Amino acid sequence: MKKSEFGFIGDIAKLCSTLPHNGFEPIGDDCTVVECGAGEAMVFTTDMLIEDVHFLRAASSPEEVGEKSLMVNISDVAAMGARPVATLLSIALPEAAQGEWAERFMQGYCEASAREGVALVGGDTTASRDRISINVVAIGRAPMSNIKRRSAAKVGDAICVTGRLGISSKGLVDIMFGDLNTAAAKAHRRAQARTTEGAWLGKCEEVHAMMDISDGIASDIKHIMEQSHVGATINLDAIPTDYDIRYAVSGGEDYELLFTVDAAHVASLRQALQHETDTELSVIGHITAEEELVWMDKGERVELELNGFTHF
Amino acid sequence: MKKSEFGFIGDIAKLCSTLPHNGFEPIGDDCTVVECGAGEAMVFTTDMLIEDVHFLRAASSPEEVGEKSLMVNISDVAAMGARPVATLLSIALPEAAQGEWAERFMQGYCEASAREGVALVGGDTTASRDRISINVVAIGRAPMSNIKRRSAAKVGDAICVTGRLGISSKGLVDIMFGDLNTAAAKAHRRAQARTTEGAWLGKCEEVHAMMDISDGIASDIKHIMEQSHVGATINLDAIPTDYDIRYAVSGGEDYELLFTVDAAHVASLRQALQHETDTELSVIGHITAEEELVWMDKGERVELELNGFTHF
Repeated sequence: MKKSEFGFIGDIAKLCSTLPHNGFEPIGDDCTVVECGAGEAMVFTTDMLIEDVHFLRAASSPEEVGEKSLMVNISDVAAMGARPVATLLSIALPEAAQGEWAERFMQGYCEASAREGVALVGGDTTASRDRISINVVAIGRAPMSNIKRRSAAKVGDAICVTGRLGISSKGLVDIMFGDLNTAAAKAHRRAQARTTEGAWLGKCEEVHAMMDISDGIASDIKHIMEQSHVGATINLDAIPTDYDIRYAVSGGEDYELLFTVDAAHVASLRQALQHETDTELSVIGHITAEEELVWMDKGERVELELNGFTHF
Repeated sequence: MKKSEFGFIGDIAKLCSTLPHNGFEPIGDDCTVVECGAGEAMVFTTDMLIEDVHFLRAASSPEEVGEKSLMVNISDVAAMGARPVATLLSIALPEAAQGEWAERFMQGYCEASAREGVALVGGDTTASRDRISINVVAIGRAPMSNIKRRSAAKVGDAICVTGRLGISSKGLVDIMFGDLNTAAAKAHRRAQARTTEGAWLGKCEEVHAMMDISDGIASDIKHIMEQSHVGATINLDAIPTDYDIRYAVSGGEDYELLFTVDAAHVASLRQALQHETDTELSVIGHITAEEELVWMDKGERVELELNGFTHF
């Protein structure tokens, strides 16, 4: 359960703690984890997409919404070091979307599922009054020893990311300005989850904490800090991006992986990841003992503010 | 996945069949089933509730909506012969519902979860423009040998139901007429799942097919007929109800269990169920070889039509 929205989530966590756990790990990661079979884990995550909040029918094709509904969920499975195996899909449709829109949505959802090797095992379809609601649950499996938790970062770990950041939030700005056809706008509408990389990194013992970047590094690294009781120093000039650094730092929906690695093994891990998946690994900082977030730029400490950052 | 709504569900099933199954049983039951661990099964179901389609904020208290969101899902788990162990909850809230309404909803959801011993292991909260969307996924566990499928009915089986039928749809009519406080209206808003009975019946080998009654017997028995390739004869005068028989036959949301039992053991099963769970079992008909649904009333065959039934 993400803690990002509404004050009452704090109360939910409190309420939850009064309930039995039945073998499920408490809320706090990208997915919940349960042991099933000797040494085997199953992981679960859910995300809801609401029309006019998460997508606009005028700006995204039905196929793109279908693909994205799947991707945001299996990205959370990948972030645990697990392999996505199945999803359940619920969709509420106003009358105007019950024909062609629904069919094209399913086409996008199923094509992406086929590409990722994920089954569609259940769901619910219903009517709604005027807006589309979509809910996806993704299920993943992995050996329990592969599961990566936000709480596993160690002092001295290198902080790493896959790929290049900022393109999705740059694309959102393009869309807001009516530029629907820029490369960034397309990337925003067609997020790709790092499923191969996530499952591969799950097998690597030198990878400690892992999560996916859904709200931007500035916000997401704090979850690892809180859960691991550590601090972090991040070098802005080391963040891989082709856009204004602010998109990479505070913009969301990149769905790249953010993870910490035993510093002694990071060079060989970078080489191996590149070789196995053709995906770039960048070291953007390191984990510290003091529980604060420090930003550096070209060797100097900088203060990061909501509207960018200023030098000390 | 229910086949009740929209033509495109047929297409979904077709699309799904092109995807890998990854060990999950194909769509067609109250829950999907996957083996996890030797001889152990995990089952999954999902249901979406949309404001002004499934509930009215003016007619149901937030606590009632919370309780019902849980109950309709764990009823599907019970219908598989499994024990509900956990849920994931997604909720989209318009601004006016983000305060007290949300808190009271969670209170109802968590109190019912505590009563049923079910964990809340994940979820998503988000904003919506004007209406509330709720999605629940329920997870159940059972030995694989306990799992009851719609496809397991045998010719000669007694067709049985738990409890008394029709109160929920009578209550819906009361609510539509503005009578919010009748016993039936309250029962409609506060559906109770037969979780103890479902898990207990799961252990009984003489119980063959099972499902929950969500759309009324007339519609639900057809799922068992289709999946088992059998017919059914149902005696209207044997259906346990305190209301007009049409509510019991074509009205939905009773969340009682509908199941078929080896006829030689039905008397002893009735006694044992009563003794173990204090719940009434009624025999309402039997499974036949010819794949048609026959209605009987006081020993005579009757024709059941949309607006009631007429004698031959």
